Parts: sequence; structure tokens; C-alpha cells
Amino acid sequence: MSFLACKEAPDKNVSLESPTANTETHTVKAQGDFAHSVYIWLHNPNRTEDRMAFESSLMRFINASVNIQTTHIGVPANTDRDVVDNSYTYSLLLTFKDKAAQDRYQEEPVHKQFIEESSKLWKKILIYDSENIFDK
Amino acid sequence: MSFLACKEAPDKNVSLESPTANTETHTVKAQGDFAHSVYIWLHNPNRTEDRMAFESSLMRFINASVNIQTTHIGVPANTDRDVVDNSYTYSLLLTFKDKAAQDRYQEEPVHKQFIEESSKLWKKILIYDSENIFDK
Repeated sequence: MSFLACKEAPDKNVSLESPTANTETHTVKAQGDFAHSVYIWLHNPNRTEDRMAFESSLMRFINASVNIQTTHIGVPANTDRDVVDNSYTYSLLLTFKDKAAQDRYQEEPVHKQFIEESSKLWKKILIYDSENIFDK
Repeated sequence: MSFLACKEAPDKNVSLESPTANTETHTVKAQGDFAHSVYIWLHNPNRTEDRMAFESSLMRFINASVNIQTTHIGVPANTDRDVVDNSYTYSLLLTFKDKAAQDRYQEEPVHKQFIEESSKLWKKILIYDSENIFDK
């Protein structure tokens, strides 16, 4: 886990895009060595009640989980390129301190409750799990 | 952009997994509203010289880019489940302040140099671009 971001950016009140922010690199490592990236295709992505039900179930779960480190909950940005898949309905990009934390997350009752509540709404779910390989 | 993580975790010297870290939620938003998640399949994932060439080219690029906000560079965690795709060679999970920053990143000379150097090494690249939908 890296807190590099916290040591550099906010306290100095500088933009991360400023060449003066850091003479060696302009970027910071994400917090959490384990990335769990989930893409979900709803059966009915245009049905407002399904989206509302999914989003509220998801947020109850995310806010209650004790193992997740950072979250990014999104929808396709519609960047139109051949190599970009914009067909999913929701992305859920989570980081964890390490693999053990993600293993515990899989077993959390709030996680199982979310799946029980919401899995009927999706037709496909695709996950990529990645472990950080630099500067652990 | 959220610096919630920086306000809470490191200064108080508490674990993010501690129930006392935050009475409302245990997780924090990732920095950057735009997530650019790239999965790369090398032609020869078991050839050490190809991996070294790819990794050094990638790191030169990442360290020189002025638009990336956070990075997570990884390999498959080999979590063995039907819904998990472990077939890729490298993941490159980047966040940006917003879509405009990602658009600028696409045009950075160091980005184009990385593609010129390394695209011959990969047989497939797949990207998901996601815009944050909560608490912007």
C-alpha cells in the first residue's frame, strides 16, 4: 500500500500536472496492491427501475464492506475506439490492501447479500484481478 | 477528484479495516473521476526479454506522462473463478482527473513513443474507459 499521494499532492496544494509537483514522476501509485475490476452487463440497461435498484443495492454493500480500500463506480465513457469495449452497463473498480483482504471481501455477508439482491438484474459479469508488480 | 483518503487514513495512523476509521463507510473513493483500464496480451508472455523490454518501455512512459493521476500496474492474481479472466499478461489501470486529461494523455509524445516501442510485443489490447457516477 502506498500513501505517496497523500504525502505529496494535497498538502502542497499543487496540481499533479504541474512539472514542479515531483521532479521524477508526475503520477502516484493507486492505494492497494490488489485491483479487482468488475464489469456488469444488465439485462435491461435502459430500464430506470432496474438501474435504481442495482445502484442502491451496490452502494449499501460498498459502504458496509470493511475490506475494500478504494472504489471507482462508473459507466462507459463512450470513448469511441476499436480497442475500447463500451458495451457494459456498470464498472466497479475496487482496490484492496492485498489478496487476503480481497479473499475476506468475497466472504463478507454484505457482499453475498448484494449478489443475492442484484444478480437477477445482470446477464453477464466479467472480472479481472490484478496484483501490483512495481514498488510494493 | 477526491482527497478523502488523504484526510482520513495516514494522519490518524489507523487501519482502513478498523471499524473506528470512519463511522459511515470504511472505503474511500479512488482519486480521479476517469478510469482507463488496459489489458494487454503479449505474443510471448513467457519470454523474459520481451517482458523486460515491455516493462522498461512502460515505466519510462508512465513516469514521464504529465496527465495520469494514479497508476496500478499488475499481472493476473490467478483467482480461479469462472467469472474471472486471468488470460492477459499485464494490466495497466490508470485514473485521470477527468475525460479531458485522458484525451490529452492519448496525444502525449511519450504515450505515442511507448506504443511505437512496444506494440509489436502484444497480440491483443483491450480497454475499458469508465466515468465515475457517484459523489463527483
